[in-house]
Amino acid sequence: MIIIGERINGMFQDIAKAIRERDGSIVQEWAKKQEQNGARYLDINVGPGSAAPIEAMVWLVEETQKASDLPLCLDSTNYDAIEAGLKVCKRPAMINSVPAEAEKMDRVFTLAAEYDSEVICLAMSAEGIPKDSESRVALAMELVATGDGYGVPIENLYIDPLVLPCNVAQDHGPEVLETLRQVKLISDPPPKTVVGLSNASQGTRDRELVNRVFAVMAMACGLDAAIADACDDELMSAVATARILLNIDIYCDSYVDVFKQA
Amino acid sequence: MIIIGERINGMFQDIAKAIRERDGSIVQEWAKKQEQNGARYLDINVGPGSAAPIEAMVWLVEETQKASDLPLCLDSTNYDAIEAGLKVCKRPAMINSVPAEAEKMDRVFTLAAEYDSEVICLAMSAEGIPKDSESRVALAMELVATGDGYGVPIENLYIDPLVLPCNVAQDHGPEVLETLRQVKLISDPPPKTVVGLSNASQGTRDRELVNRVFAVMAMACGLDAAIADACDDELMSAVATARILLNIDIYCDSYVDVFKQA
Repeated sequence: MIIIGERINGMFQDIAKAIRERDGSIVQEWAKKQEQNGARYLDINVGPGSAAPIEAMVWLVEETQKASDLPLCLDSTNYDAIEAGLKVCKRPAMINSVPAEAEKMDRVFTLAAEYDSEVICLAMSAEGIPKDSESRVALAMELVATGDGYGVPIENLYIDPLVLPCNVAQDHGPEVLETLRQVKLISDPPPKTVVGLSNASQGTRDRELVNRVFAVMAMACGLDAAIADACDDELMSAVATARILLNIDIYCDSYVDVFKQA
Repeated sequence: MIIIGERINGMFQDIAKAIRERDGSIVQEWAKKQEQNGARYLDINVGPGSAAPIEAMVWLVEETQKASDLPLCLDSTNYDAIEAGLKVCKRPAMINSVPAEAEKMDRVFTLAAEYDSEVICLAMSAEGIPKDSESRVALAMELVATGDGYGVPIENLYIDPLVLPCNVAQDHGPEVLETLRQVKLISDPPPKTVVGLSNASQGTRDRELVNRVFAVMAMACGLDAAIADACDDELMSAVATARILLNIDIYCDSYVDVFKQA
């Protein structure tokens, strides 16, 4: 399980300010900090308030690449911004994200095929997020079949079962875990899986506790990646420990440090 | 998932001393402390060094019952000590444990049927602990079928897949998780499942981290109970959180406290 660092996102005040003032130092600082703490991708999101999202995305990508060689995860519902970002990425990136909607899949999978991108595929349609795992898995199959039709390798697809806050949609929790398990059975090789971890804890009192417990439960069900706070040390320790218990990394006393540096 | 408090065990110096000196106060203190912190059973083990294990078991049971009404989990390989303990238990107890060996199953299941006890069934035979999940599940089936033959209800059986220290038998980790999942499919109703949590972390540097991560990963795979340190607050918080995420308990901001008091 790898961590996609969530911090370069215009919903955070400091990044929003950095974008407005075109102050690259804060972006570069977060890029380095997340990489040093074990992130393996960096999510790039201009945030909801950006006046010129395309230019902002290009700028964020370029500033981030000045500080880190990690692959980027371009996070936007504006596909023109995604495309502009892909053009300046130095290495293959991840597109975040596409739902199971024909027009959007056409645009995103065409881009993915052209730019050799990975794609986060949301288990939702125009009708919204289904409650049960069966419907989520059916949408995952639609996304995988469609991506395959565009020539995107299945290993490049990350199914996101869509995690909802546990204090308002508690019945979704077991369905998300079951979806993670089932998605691994829909093809060979199977698609990868990803979650937006912080969604699980939205509005709860001890958000970090909820995040790290959900992360390792999901890992036990086959989770491959999470968009998460790489600077949450307890989360990173929990993830490193789960990798040991799943026999992914070899145990040594300093396995948490090794995981961060790997 | 419920916690069986592990602390009344003669392998701990203070309990060994209490047994030697027949000083009930320390036993009663641990009984209360574990119950207050959320234990739902109390494991009772006279420890390896006890000169008169039968008398010690009876004494420990009686002292514990002076302080707590929790059901007890009588933990011994000496079945005469188990039987003596069952005779003085005020309510149905759990027997810890029996492997898949004909003679031992005969003795333990006979006791369980007579005393209406639950039984921890070890997924091991005279040949030892198998490495793969398939062999563990096969032993679980043998235990369930045998117990059923003695009239022990399947819901009273707790299959223990046998957790080994992750720093010496790392490849067993995924097999244990898979066993927990598979055991839920062998009958309807299925047997329950239990692990001796602290085994996972034996010899590791941050034992509590390993314990709590393994606990919630196992819960995601269907774990029903763990013999564990109920006084490890971070473990109890993690378990309470996993119960929320599995939609077992209803979310409220104080769910950790509610779990401990429930």
